Amino acid sequence: MHQTHFLNARLTDGSLADLTVAGGRFSAIVPAAHAAAPPAGAVDLGGLLVLPGFVEGHVHLDTSFYGDAWRPHIPCTDGFDVRERVAVQMRNLSLAAPMEERAKNQLELCVGNGSLAMRSHVMVDATVGLKHVETILAVRENCRELIDIQLVAFPQSGILSSPGTAELLEEALKLGCDLVGGLDPASFDRDVKGHLDVVFGLAERRGAGVDIHLHDAGTLGLYEIEEICARTNALGMAGQVAVSHAYALGDISADALAKAGERLAAAGVAIMTNAPGSHSFPPVAALRKAGVTVFAGSDNIRDSWWPYGDGDMLNRANMIGYRSGFYEDWELEAAYDVVSHAGAKALGLEAYGIEVGTKADFVALKAEHIPEAVVAVPKPRTVYRAGRVVARDGTVA
Amino acid sequence: MHQTHFLNARLTDGSLADLTVAGGRFSAIVPAAHAAAPPAGAVDLGGLLVLPGFVEGHVHLDTSFYGDAWRPHIPCTDGFDVRERVAVQMRNLSLAAPMEERAKNQLELCVGNGSLAMRSHVMVDATVGLKHVETILAVRENCRELIDIQLVAFPQSGILSSPGTAELLEEALKLGCDLVGGLDPASFDRDVKGHLDVVFGLAERRGAGVDIHLHDAGTLGLYEIEEICARTNALGMAGQVAVSHAYALGDISADALAKAGERLAAAGVAIMTNAPGSHSFPPVAALRKAGVTVFAGSDNIRDSWWPYGDGDMLNRANMIGYRSGFYEDWELEAAYDVVSHAGAKALGLEAYGIEVGTKADFVALKAEHIPEAVVAVPKPRTVYRAGRVVARDGTVA
Repeated sequence: MHQTHFLNARLTDGSLADLTVAGGRFSAIVPAAHAAAPPAGAVDLGGLLVLPGFVEGHVHLDTSFYGDAWRPHIPCTDGFDVRERVAVQMRNLSLAAPMEERAKNQLELCVGNGSLAMRSHVMVDATVGLKHVETILAVRENCRELIDIQLVAFPQSGILSSPGTAELLEEALKLGCDLVGGLDPASFDRDVKGHLDVVFGLAERRGAGVDIHLHDAGTLGLYEIEEICARTNALGMAGQVAVSHAYALGDISADALAKAGERLAAAGVAIMTNAPGSHSFPPVAALRKAGVTVFAGSDNIRDSWWPYGDGDMLNRANMIGYRSGFYEDWELEAAYDVVSHAGAKALGLEAYGIEVGTKADFVALKAEHIPEAVVAVPKPRTVYRAGRVVARDGTVA
Repeated sequence: MHQTHFLNARLTDGSLADLTVAGGRFSAIVPAAHAAAPPAGAVDLGGLLVLPGFVEGHVHLDTSFYGDAWRPHIPCTDGFDVRERVAVQMRNLSLAAPMEERAKNQLELCVGNGSLAMRSHVMVDATVGLKHVETILAVRENCRELIDIQLVAFPQSGILSSPGTAELLEEALKLGCDLVGGLDPASFDRDVKGHLDVVFGLAERRGAGVDIHLHDAGTLGLYEIEEICARTNALGMAGQVAVSHAYALGDISADALAKAGERLAAAGVAIMTNAPGSHSFPPVAALRKAGVTVFAGSDNIRDSWWPYGDGDMLNRANMIGYRSGFYEDWELEAAYDVVSHAGAKALGLEAYGIEVGTKADFVALKAEHIPEAVVAVPKPRTVYRAGRVVARDGTVA
């Protein structure tokens, strides 16, 4: 089998190692030999830090305008309203470049920054039907060599409020979506039980995972999290269910948070946050301490919801640390874990990491160690997929 | 007089212009001529956005470890305590590379990112005496061609709590510091009146500006802000006084904030924020609406206070926007204003901006307009001082 040798890779313990890749996986990791005559074709990484490809745990591949014309943000007329935002989005999308082109721009942005696995929500509702899903499934197929993508059939207009959506979600799973999504069962669909019956019913019937958008605040959101945990327990779905955003966890008392953490950890329900800037969000340290898998995503990247988003999960780790008051090395390492190993766990990725036997999907960048990488967010980076360069200096090869 | 021509510069209104620089200032700004035979030696900016050099309004040139060995953050033993942090800092500094070297690293980081004017606080206390001030004054002198620097004599260990500091502050002003600093008159020195008597007494006697570190929360901090405004009014120092951090403004009711905003605007007292990640901070939009000059700084860059800080004021604008929930174009423009024109106003900079007659201190980067620059934080950048390249791709020439 063809082998590729990477010399003088800095591992996260600070040591230098020589890595061998065969069949797209690491076949050997040994202390750097500094050999006078290295193997032919060996790549000298010259002490660059080598990290496994970052895990982008939450994006919306169908809605970004990244790489397309600038679209000024249009605010809601009277305070934030999801329905109004969806309407703005539909108007915006009708004017935008073709979805496959915009999705590819966004994918390449993410890969260029070092993400090699991704979970994307894709809108399904009575208006767009399965059009978005079909387009993004094709993009996934076209980019299979570049990045692993999980797709969530996302009921952007609710399930009960948008008749026909339950059937469309099932169809989306049949077409190839990996997970069934949800959206604020209480505030949006006004029926927590009815909404979750559909979501978990589909998950059970189709053997799909679950990833629910939950913006509901305080005790209302907490109640919904409890219901999601109960259903996850009932169906034995530990490790296959996630709650995205879960702002409520940032609103509640320390006691209530401790109980919620225990419940989430016991149920095996993961929490996704993007560390929003002007909103409460799940306390990352407390949840991790309770044993909860906390992962991260960019969420919206320059779309109708907000103009932010850079598709850089290392910068996201920086933001998670900055927003969480993480200053010590072990805390900065925790912020990094959220965008890497914890993300891999939440997504159920196989063979993740820099170890013999794992996939040789990695990023090389200039940093002494993880804490420095998290605060410095170094560029340029070289991104390797199965041991081959797929992006350099932000540009996909 | 020697002239330099810059062709096809994108102005912030989106138009392309040809800029002429003579004697370090813009002598002409005209619509791009796309001339077949451009003047000899003309620099074609090819549509890059041209912004005036960013204003770094608050750094600590004496304490950063940027470019030196990594120093893991050491937490306080029992919750945050300024005295304990100062002690950690003194131990750290005793092990660090020479101050002039570290200060230069930090300066070059800032200039490389496009800051061409800066206000730095420099520690003065009974232990270090004037050593830091003397060193940083020399660094300023050595880097005069690179960047304009204002220095604040900063009583890091308090004034009344550290006998002899008042005299040292006066000495620092005589040596060349431009402003007198202060530090939490209530919580640190336990004597608001006594502390401010010294600060404003020195300011009056030496004709110096004032920039006070104020971390005190809620109504206590608000009371101190009121006292600072009253003294500014009494001395007719409008435009020469700033309060840095002013966390209290992020804690109080909308009514109290409205009154504080009026008072600050009327007194001409500016507010500096770095948009901290895990702490309340001054509401930028509300204060600007009230007519308050809000400016920004990196604050600590990889030092004994925290490991963050990248010296990039455009990224700081991004953070200000992100933390403030700024999504619309005019809001993103406001975030940019904080790190540019409002900063220039707070620092009293002369001839700032891209206009005929202003200093040709500017940054060229790839963006369509300011909102895009704020969300994309584009690199690489080329930084020009008096019309000459001083940094390219983050590296000082």
